[in-house]
Amino acid sequence: MSNQPDRIYFDNAATTALDPHVLEAMMPYFTDKFGNPSSIYSYGRESRLAIENARKTVAKILNAHPAEIFFTSGGTESSNTAISAAIRDLGCRHIITSPIEHHATSHTVDHLYHHGEAALSFVKLLPNGHIDMEDLEHLLANSHEKTLVTLMHANNEIGNMLDIHAVGNLCKMYGAIFHSDTVQTVGHFPFDLRNTPVHFITGAGHKFHGPKGVGMLYINENVKIKPYIHGGSQERNMRAGTENLYGIVGFAKALELATEQYETQSSYIRELKIYMMEQVKKQVRHVSFNGDPLGCSLYTVLSVSFPKTEKSEMILFNLDMNNICASGGSACTSGADQGSHVIRAINNNPNQVTVRFSFSKHNTKEEIDFVVEKLKEMI
Amino acid sequence: MSNQPDRIYFDNAATTALDPHVLEAMMPYFTDKFGNPSSIYSYGRESRLAIENARKTVAKILNAHPAEIFFTSGGTESSNTAISAAIRDLGCRHIITSPIEHHATSHTVDHLYHHGEAALSFVKLLPNGHIDMEDLEHLLANSHEKTLVTLMHANNEIGNMLDIHAVGNLCKMYGAIFHSDTVQTVGHFPFDLRNTPVHFITGAGHKFHGPKGVGMLYINENVKIKPYIHGGSQERNMRAGTENLYGIVGFAKALELATEQYETQSSYIRELKIYMMEQVKKQVRHVSFNGDPLGCSLYTVLSVSFPKTEKSEMILFNLDMNNICASGGSACTSGADQGSHVIRAINNNPNQVTVRFSFSKHNTKEEIDFVVEKLKEMI
Ligand SMILES: Cc1ncc(COP(=O)(O)O)c(C=O)c1O
Ligand SMILES: Cc1ncc(COP(=O)(O)O)c(C=O)c1O
Repeated sequence: MSNQPDRIYFDNAATTALDPHVLEAMMPYFTDKFGNPSSIYSYGRESRLAIENARKTVAKILNAHPAEIFFTSGGTESSNTAISAAIRDLGCRHIITSPIEHHATSHTVDHLYHHGEAALSFVKLLPNGHIDMEDLEHLLANSHEKTLVTLMHANNEIGNMLDIHAVGNLCKMYGAIFHSDTVQTVGHFPFDLRNTPVHFITGAGHKFHGPKGVGMLYINENVKIKPYIHGGSQERNMRAGTENLYGIVGFAKALELATEQYETQSSYIRELKIYMMEQVKKQVRHVSFNGDPLGCSLYTVLSVSFPKTEKSEMILFNLDMNNICASGGSACTSGADQGSHVIRAINNNPNQVTVRFSFSKHNTKEEIDFVVEKLKEMI
Repeated sequence: MSNQPDRIYFDNAATTALDPHVLEAMMPYFTDKFGNPSSIYSYGRESRLAIENARKTVAKILNAHPAEIFFTSGGTESSNTAISAAIRDLGCRHIITSPIEHHATSHTVDHLYHHGEAALSFVKLLPNGHIDMEDLEHLLANSHEKTLVTLMHANNEIGNMLDIHAVGNLCKMYGAIFHSDTVQTVGHFPFDLRNTPVHFITGAGHKFHGPKGVGMLYINENVKIKPYIHGGSQERNMRAGTENLYGIVGFAKALELATEQYETQSSYIRELKIYMMEQVKKQVRHVSFNGDPLGCSLYTVLSVSFPKTEKSEMILFNLDMNNICASGGSACTSGADQGSHVIRAINNNPNQVTVRFSFSKHNTKEEIDFVVEKLKEMI
């Protein structure tokens, strides 16, 4: 076949390619600068300095205080830490969440609920997948115990974005603790945490061309929690264990690059998404888009549903055969038979097959043309 | 000064230099092979395969089953997971430990104890720092609740090694769960887990020339625990979060290299340690060695106490001034004023100053000569 591209990677919400400049920033710590950041000699202090500079960089970009930024092993650990701490250390006895949270949130919440540590309420969703704010207020107003609200900033499968300020203000009004899983938005949207009423947010380096295995937890200075992982005094006694030095340096560098490139790249990627929507709509019959793709939504994610047929049921397999990487849901559940809990929650139509396409700065319109042509053949 | 070496790194128990061959094995995953291991397309399956191959390599070397090997973010997370699970999932209500465990163990144990989750007993130490096996048996025999024994395989500050088989057999006799922190021995000693009566052991890549931020937890197939970090189905539902792909590949490669080189390197490093002992004894007055350095001990660690004087109190500072990296205790506590809990537990002599020297394959006798000469001047 003429013009077949090597591989088309449309699964950037699952993970992104490491930026070569990020790798370059990490390299000295893989070679010369291997000192333990906790050691007191100058050689260790160099590593400590690299970590503290990374923290300052991240804090500055998010407009937070460096003392509010903690490095972790990833978005999942960050959410586990925040949610568990809200129950264990902040006295929350009621959790309000949504049915479309990432498993890092929902399984942590389930675990606490099943151990009798907290009551559990699910906020209603509107037909477009957004949180029903009236229902949220109703739940908060009727909560008679200290409450944790955990609602993701952007959904990784359908792209819907939360009005984090509106939710934060509601939480404030009702004295609730607010955790938002921002794994899909850190590195993709500007943050101004000093002016955002949120107690905990999370990040994962590999979602914005940084390294895997490193994440961030922002803890607002007004809440005091205990460590989730106990041991040495790393991360100011909040997260024990010898630091992932390269990972931390890479996280900060990736966030720096993403911030510098934010304006040009966000509009470039948004155009790709809209172009793909248009092309799919034009060329493939009976498609629909999940969530609120042209409204309050990630510019990186497009969730498409096709009518279920013998052919369309093989779509992910056939995309793979054509060297096209896309996903049925989140990466973590893409192997599971039952499909996505998110799609089920917003659109429980057994006669549809859903594919998530997610984009980065490395994608092009030509790739979209190729993929849409293939989709036409496959459906 | 003639012949001053660049920098002498005698702190290999804190962390080691990444082996260039390990970095080489990791590199493809920093560049081309960035697919998410949980994705179902072939590009993700390549990453999955890399992780499963790493797991097989590690399992084979330790003579365990691949299903018993779980990758984590480090030794600290591994110990937190094992100890918490023994209480939460295996029903242990009594913990027997020692006063010289690493903080990854002792702070986790303290946390559980202070939350009323388990009773706590400390096994007595012999004057040379070894566990008093009679006292251990006495504690086990008098424990009327299900018991967790957590005793480290090798102490990171004084090098003392536990007879893991003897302790494991005692635990078996009394129906106790046995966790051993093997962070200082994995990659330094052969393991034969199918023939070792232990339920949990731990490892950290950066202690044997592998990467930081990645560790291992061995869970014997006869015990079934729940995850410590909740979320996606990574690590067979046992440890959620997008995997540290490079780290895992690097961990396995480093363990492979360490195993290949074990015989030559262990005797080379042991010679260095003994040489240093001899030279220090010969050239510096009133020194003593902590633990059991010529007995059952790490070949990598030498803990030396000097009489406290105005000069010797500055010893770590002066070593640093001479570009010599050594440590006052473990790296994690080396910044703390109170000194080492290990040294206090075995030798509570306020008139001594203790320095840990720890060696790797990269060290030489010439470096030792230089350091001993400097010590002579400093004491
Ligand atoms: C919304 C969301 N939250 C949390 C996570 C978990 O991040 P990680 O897998 O890096 O721990 C992800 C991605 O996997 C995500 O998309
Ligand atoms: C004996 C021992 N256990 C546990 C750890 C913790 O390992 P890590 O810091 O990689 O989590 C260390 C080293 O720091 C150690 O020496």
